[in-house]
Order: sequence, then C-alpha cells, then structure tokens
Amino acid sequence: MRLSQLLIKTEQQTPADADLISHRLLLRSGLIRQVSTGIYSLTPLAWRAMQRIAEIARDEMNRIGGQELLLPVAQPASLWRETGRYAAIDASLARFTDRNRQEMVLAMTHEEAVTDLARHVIQSHRQLPVMVYQIQTKFRDEARPRGGLIRLREFQMKDAYSFHADAQSLTEFYGRVTAAYKSFYARCGIQAIQVESDAGMMGGGDAHEFMLLSDSGEDTLLLCDACAYAANLEVLELQQLTGDICPRCEGTLRRMRGIEVGNIFQLGTKYSEAMGAFFTDSQGARKPLLMGCYGIGISRMLACVVEANHDGAGIVWPTSVAPYAVHLVSLGHEPEIRTMAEELHAMLGAENTLWDDRPLGAGRKLQDADLLGMPVRVTASPRALAAGGVEVRHRQTGRTRIAALDEVQMVVDSLLQ
Amino acid sequence: MRLSQLLIKTEQQTPADADLISHRLLLRSGLIRQVSTGIYSLTPLAWRAMQRIAEIARDEMNRIGGQELLLPVAQPASLWRETGRYAAIDASLARFTDRNRQEMVLAMTHEEAVTDLARHVIQSHRQLPVMVYQIQTKFRDEARPRGGLIRLREFQMKDAYSFHADAQSLTEFYGRVTAAYKSFYARCGIQAIQVESDAGMMGGGDAHEFMLLSDSGEDTLLLCDACAYAANLEVLELQQLTGDICPRCEGTLRRMRGIEVGNIFQLGTKYSEAMGAFFTDSQGARKPLLMGCYGIGISRMLACVVEANHDGAGIVWPTSVAPYAVHLVSLGHEPEIRTMAEELHAMLGAENTLWDDRPLGAGRKLQDADLLGMPVRVTASPRALAAGGVEVRHRQTGRTRIAALDEVQMVVDSLLQ
Repeated sequence: MRLSQLLIKTEQQTPADADLISHRLLLRSGLIRQVSTGIYSLTPLAWRAMQRIAEIARDEMNRIGGQELLLPVAQPASLWRETGRYAAIDASLARFTDRNRQEMVLAMTHEEAVTDLARHVIQSHRQLPVMVYQIQTKFRDEARPRGGLIRLREFQMKDAYSFHADAQSLTEFYGRVTAAYKSFYARCGIQAIQVESDAGMMGGGDAHEFMLLSDSGEDTLLLCDACAYAANLEVLELQQLTGDICPRCEGTLRRMRGIEVGNIFQLGTKYSEAMGAFFTDSQGARKPLLMGCYGIGISRMLACVVEANHDGAGIVWPTSVAPYAVHLVSLGHEPEIRTMAEELHAMLGAENTLWDDRPLGAGRKLQDADLLGMPVRVTASPRALAAGGVEVRHRQTGRTRIAALDEVQMVVDSLLQ
Repeated sequence: MRLSQLLIKTEQQTPADADLISHRLLLRSGLIRQVSTGIYSLTPLAWRAMQRIAEIARDEMNRIGGQELLLPVAQPASLWRETGRYAAIDASLARFTDRNRQEMVLAMTHEEAVTDLARHVIQSHRQLPVMVYQIQTKFRDEARPRGGLIRLREFQMKDAYSFHADAQSLTEFYGRVTAAYKSFYARCGIQAIQVESDAGMMGGGDAHEFMLLSDSGEDTLLLCDACAYAANLEVLELQQLTGDICPRCEGTLRRMRGIEVGNIFQLGTKYSEAMGAFFTDSQGARKPLLMGCYGIGISRMLACVVEANHDGAGIVWPTSVAPYAVHLVSLGHEPEIRTMAEELHAMLGAENTLWDDRPLGAGRKLQDADLLGMPVRVTASPRALAAGGVEVRHRQTGRTRIAALDEVQMVVDSLLQ
C-alpha cells in the first residue's frame, strides 16, 4: 500500500484535549476521527488493526466451539420489558420511537435477543451445551465518554453467550472461556489480569473482569502480592470489606487503577426464567436454561493495545495486531532508489507493506514511521545503498542493520517472529 | 460441525405469511428469526453464508484499490443538516435524542460521514483518486418491510465512496466499479443486469442499478431485446417517456419486475460543496471534490442468492456462498457407520462439513439436507457400505454415485469446482 494513496493525515502536534496516551497517539497518527462525543470514524489503518484483533477473538471463540451469528442492534422495547431491564437501566440505554410509534432500543448488550433465539431453537438437553457469539456494533449512551476509544458510545464488541443444562457444565465452560480470554490478550500483546467483579445489571452469580494494569484506568484494583488475589474495589465495597486486607490470605492489598478489557458472567437462569427459555432434561423434566455471557470491547482493545505498546516516538504495534508488518521508506529523488523501493514493495508484498512514497524529507518520513509504529521499517536511501543495501530497523528495540536486497525478506521475517 | 450442536431448528411446515420463496426457505431452514418488523437475527448458518458474500464484496473492492474503514451508525443530526438531508428525508431516517438532548440519527447511508472525513484528510490532488468502503450495519425505517431479508429495516450493507479531482477520473472509476459489481454478482451465483436508474435522494448525475431478474421484485424493469437497453420504469416515468418504446433504438420494450441488488451513483460535487470538502488542484486552485458512491445490500444479497438458487426441495447454495461445502449424513445405529462418519468428518474437514449426527430417521435427515442445500451430500449408510462405500450426491443436479472411502475427497472436490 502506498502511503500517498492511503486515506490518512498524521498530525505533528499533540492534541490539546486528550489525556490518555492511546487517545493522543490514535489522533496524532490519524487513525481515528471524532464525529460526535464518544463516536468516531476509524480510518483504514485503524480498521485493519481492529480487524486483526477481531480475528484473534474469532479464532479463540471458534476454538472453544463458539458459533458466530448476528443479532440486531435495533430491538423492540417489548423484548427488554420481558426481563425488566427496559425500566431498570438508566439513560445509558438509548431509546427511540419508530415511524409506527413502536418503542425501540439500541442494544448495549444482547442477553434478551439471544435468549429469544434460544427459547425458539433449544428444546432438548441433547442440544447443550452451546455457545454463540457475534462481533458487532453496540451503542451505550455513556454519561461521560472519554479517552478516545476507551469509553465510547458506539463501539464494536465481541459478545458471547453460552447455554447449559446444569451448573457443572456452566462452571466447566466458564473455565474454558477464561483460558480463551487469557490466550486472546496474550496474542494481542497486552497483559491482562483476571479480577473478581460484580455482576451489576447483568444479574446472576460469579463474575470476573480482565484488567489491563494501567495508571490511566478508571477502575481501582486491589492486588495481593502474597496470594495473587485481585479484585475490583467496587466489589469489595459492595461486600462492605475495608479494602486493605486480602479476604483470601489476610495479606496487605495494594491499589492500582486498571482499564477493563473484558468481562465474563455466570448469569444462571435470570434471563431464561424471565423469558421462558426452557429445555427438557434427560429425565424429561422442563428446566430453565443456565446461561453465561462473555464480552470483549474490540474498539477499546485497539486503544489498550496502543496504551500498552508505545514509546516516546509513537505506537509500537505488536506484530499480531499491526495494520502492516513493514513500513517501507524511500528517501531522496534518485530514480534507482525509487526503482529499488518498487521492487521491495512487490517483494515484501503490497498487502503487508506500507510504502511511504510521498515527496517529503527524511525527517518527516522517519518521524511518521515511528508514529505509525509498524514492527519493521525498511529504508531505501542513497546512504544505505552505498553501505551495501537497505536499512532494516526493528521498531520495538530500535536495532538497525544494513541488509543486501536478497536477504531483506529473511531479515524482516526474523524480526517479525 | 455436528448438526446436533448447531444452533438451528428446521421447520417442516411452510410459514403461512411469507410470500417470497427466499423468505419461506430462510425461515423453514431456520437460518433467520424475526425479532421485529424488518429486523431479524441471523443464526450461525445464515451468518456463514452472509460472511462469504461479504468476503467476495471485500475482495472485489480491494481489487480496484478500495480501502476498508468503519464509519459510525449513530451520527449527530448536525452532520445531516449540513447537506439539508435532515429535513429532506422522510420518516425512513430514524431519529433519537441522546441523554444530553442532542438530536441524533441512525445512518441509512454515509455520504455525510465520509465527506466529513474527506474534508479533514484530503488536501491535494496528489491524494486522488481514492476509494473507501465499509461493510456495516445500517438502519432505514422502511414504511413497508417485506420478504424476509429483501426489504429490512436493519441490514448489513457494503457502501463505497470515491473521491476525484475531475469528471474524467470519476467516469473512469465508475466503469471500474461497474466491472467489479458484475464480477461480484457472478461469483455469488446470481445474474444481475445493469439498468439506468434515478439518483433520487442521493443527488448528482449518472446512476445505475443492478437488478436480479425476478417476478417477485418490486421494481418494474423495461427491457429492450433488440439493443439490450434496460431501465427502471420509475426513471422513464420521471423523464415522461411512455415506457413502451425503447429510447435508444425505438424497439419495443417488455416489462418485468426486478429486485435491486446494488446501485452506483455519480454524486458530483453535491456533498463536497455543501460540506466544504475542497482540494488543491495541480494549478493551485481550490476545487470541490467529485464523488461517487456504490452500494450493495449484503443482507438482501443473501436472500437473492436463495431466490435465484433453489428447487422444490430447498436451497441450492452456489459453492461460493454455501455455509458448508459438504453435508454429511450418517444413517442407522450401527457403530461402524458412526465410526465411518467420524472419519469422513475429519477427512473432509470439520470446518467445511456439516455432519448430521442426530438420532433421526433417514427421511427427515435427507429432507433437511435438501432444505439446507449444501452443494454436496455424502451419505454413510449400511446400504451404501454394502454397495462399496458412501453415497455422494450433487445437490444441484441430483447426480449420485457410490464412492470408495479413499476416493470420496476427490469426488467431492470435482463436484465443488
């Protein structure tokens, strides 16, 4: 891809009103553009990174037997009245009236919609357990959107729902989802810890959040170094615990603010009972389905990957999420450099290589390369050519070497591993 | 994939209130479930087929240099006031008020959002031409949703927007999009013809629609067999032509109702002038961007593929769109049949093979296989085993043969080509 053709505009200046580093970098790199409070357009580079995150989520869900589907965003209020959430949820649930004066909502989560599907399709214990998921647009009318893609009103979410015949099956599956989540975060290049949380408006039993450890987060975490216990302060307060003593080993808890990057809930039968989603068990008895639900904010993940992978010069994309693997820079006006860059672009693959072919000076182009943060930079310049080839630089470590043209691919591949 | 684990419920009965064959078949096969008027949940099989359609659209857009991005569904009314469309569009534009009393809309098309992005990013003729696209949720509050996925209120759409420095570039690119669209329909297994259309609320100049020829459509087409002229009746009426005489060769026009499966528009400078999206040309003059826009209803395409590919027994998926390539049926309770089916499932690939492992009789299972319509059916049964292997049947032609286990893959592959 030629940077001259890419729909993007990088900024030299740090945006004034952005406090989070991911917000500043996503704006400066031209990856996002605000349309309204908490509502952004994602430009092509951002879209590519987000798609890679979504593909990792998809892969992890498929590995534990998840079936992808698509539930609607616009839903009749009647569906949310069945569970009582139409009245229970505050203004964060966006409501509108359609042309036929039917009350509608924009779904912020899909327990009602998926339970509606389940009560139609699932009849027998033989169909259980089953897990479905989607990666889809959600709208939550947040009182205080913040931090660019951290707290949005419109966002992409991976939400999964599982159905079970008994508590043992739910608990067992909950463990499999936990493992899948840990693998997901590791593959995306962020360290997330699992903490006990509060089920809140979701209802039901056990609940955990996955937290990116960060001083920029809005959740306060309580961490015990002695026994690895971790919890959200909110939960301990709800349980009227003091918050300084570890409830597991009585060690001392330390505080840190975190950013939530996922949550998992054992919903139990709250939704299935309210909506009449019953199945016939192996003894012929009718029972409500047990449910679990599992969310990851895909848009927020994009911000968190940047939050956890950057330096003073810009983004440092993990290879797994990078919009392009290679940032090719051609410097100078010599025709032989241009020809060499064209060959490198073809050789490294136009699909994986962003080629800065703009008629700009070296300073600006190398600055943009650091800002945009692809894992490997390859620079074709008269100086590198005189030294025997092109310059190959690893964005993360800054390690640089000259590689002859016939070894560039090998050097790049070794850095991408 | 084991059918016993798939979230699906097929119906023996034809739904009473569905008139279109695609609507009936999508309901009977359990692919879709209505949530509200014109709003459906897509179950996993439908999602897989729709994803394959989306991937073909993505590939065709990428081939002509399209850059995928993501624009928001919820947008501030202020953006639509800039072009006058907030007042101009009727109740089909859904509106709501957010918690801060800001007027918002649910976007049914994205000219405003993409022009907002373009006016920020595009400054010079050197950045042109450029085309961006997205595959994303749209909401249009139709007065009369109909036909299952044919006319929805919430739907998935591929919408693309191109920006140009001059009319020649726009016209040339319009031709490239036309070719990409024709390739898209052919690859999806439907025959769509290009007809002149009316730009309507989109504004601007030349416009064409792509139409699936069908007696179930809601558009009336006028076709000239002599010179291959084709137009939407609406357009000729707007031009106050009688509608029986070909305006190109004066031959006789015949009428047929069609289903619109895509549209392309030369928007000109309508949106860029209204929203101040200007660029600097090669002489240093400031000019408004010329724009084109290009849509395909991905949800509707799913219905149209079924509309164009079915028989009395059910859906006949084209290989390119089929949720699974192979429908494996195991009949009887013999352990050796079960073992053979397990081997076939692994050999043909669980990812590409839907295995009906349910403890049901042959009649019901073969009926469901025809209804669900995967391109190749492989039946493991005592009878086929006695005849030397398994039965392989081509869904489209009904051709059937016995294949030994070690030749099944080859026979299946030849039928899928």
